[in-house]
Amino acid sequence: MSYSTDPRAARSREAMVVAARELLVAEGPGAVTHQRVAQQAGVGRATVYRHWPQPEQLLLEVMSDADLPLFKNPEAPVRRWLHRELRQMADELAVPAIAAMSLALMQSAIWDPDIAHRRDESLKTITERISVAVRSAAETGEVETDAAPADLTAMLVGPIVYRTTSQMGVVSDDLIDRLIDGVGTWHT
Amino acid sequence: MSYSTDPRAARSREAMVVAARELLVAEGPGAVTHQRVAQQAGVGRATVYRHWPQPEQLLLEVMSDADLPLFKNPEAPVRRWLHRELRQMADELAVPAIAAMSLALMQSAIWDPDIAHRRDESLKTITERISVAVRSAAETGEVETDAAPADLTAMLVGPIVYRTTSQMGVVSDDLIDRLIDGVGTWHT
Repeated sequence: MSYSTDPRAARSREAMVVAARELLVAEGPGAVTHQRVAQQAGVGRATVYRHWPQPEQLLLEVMSDADLPLFKNPEAPVRRWLHRELRQMADELAVPAIAAMSLALMQSAIWDPDIAHRRDESLKTITERISVAVRSAAETGEVETDAAPADLTAMLVGPIVYRTTSQMGVVSDDLIDRLIDGVGTWHT
Repeated sequence: MSYSTDPRAARSREAMVVAARELLVAEGPGAVTHQRVAQQAGVGRATVYRHWPQPEQLLLEVMSDADLPLFKNPEAPVRRWLHRELRQMADELAVPAIAAMSLALMQSAIWDPDIAHRRDESLKTITERISVAVRSAAETGEVETDAAPADLTAMLVGPIVYRTTSQMGVVSDDLIDRLIDGVGTWHT
């Protein structure tokens, strides 16, 4: 994969990643081909090839993208925002192809240091974002908690991953509420 | 695999499963061979072969055993018992070979109906055991909760699996306390 500092190249790169992600969610890993991604992103096939010679690399990029759209731009009240983001994560993982791909990546990380690095970066990003949001909620008095950042992620994200990849069940809004309740005392 | 109703055969079968589990935890999947299991269980090699012609079958049996030792025989106070069982689960998953094997089983379950069935049975057993324990704690007034059984499992076990297989970190006693706090209001 090539990373460019040219803003136009960065935009087209992001368009391809977004397109690949949309195809993956809508139709599964098989839909993430150079041709479909090029079409959906409005770029030439050669551009997709240049960034990711193998479709698997693009898939890996999408699934473990450190710049993933989840938990971005927290809003007050944080509780409502957190619920919405966890809901979206649960809905994405409810797509069997996404759950399967997540498990495949988790497993590949055991023997592939590159994938392990991407997993770590991705988790670091999510953990930082959730932590920043919860800290800002604590500052405005919305919540009281002394949970460490990594524990917040484990308590909020862990059960959703478990429900969708092991229990093979639906994440209800009630469960999301319970998870949010579990991280501290909310005053909203 | 053969299942016998003869009590002596059942005992030797259990001894072999226990031996395989001990070898797996202590030395990793590579140690779960017919010879080592026979030696450790004090049975003949032919007996191990008869039950599990392939070592992988024994490994699968151990990893997805519906009769797993965790969360068995709840004791009052339930909070302390729950903490101890979750601690033990976390310690087992802290062994890299066990975490790797768990991920492999979770992933294999996607395309192998037999493994999926074993995973479902195993989860059902754990969920029932946790649910019975929490319900008994509710009856004695130790805890107040209206969480559904599957949600209890997701909230208690999910973060531990996530911490050990994705975050690749240690499960602290403090995190276990937080997880237990999260399932309801405890009066102990």
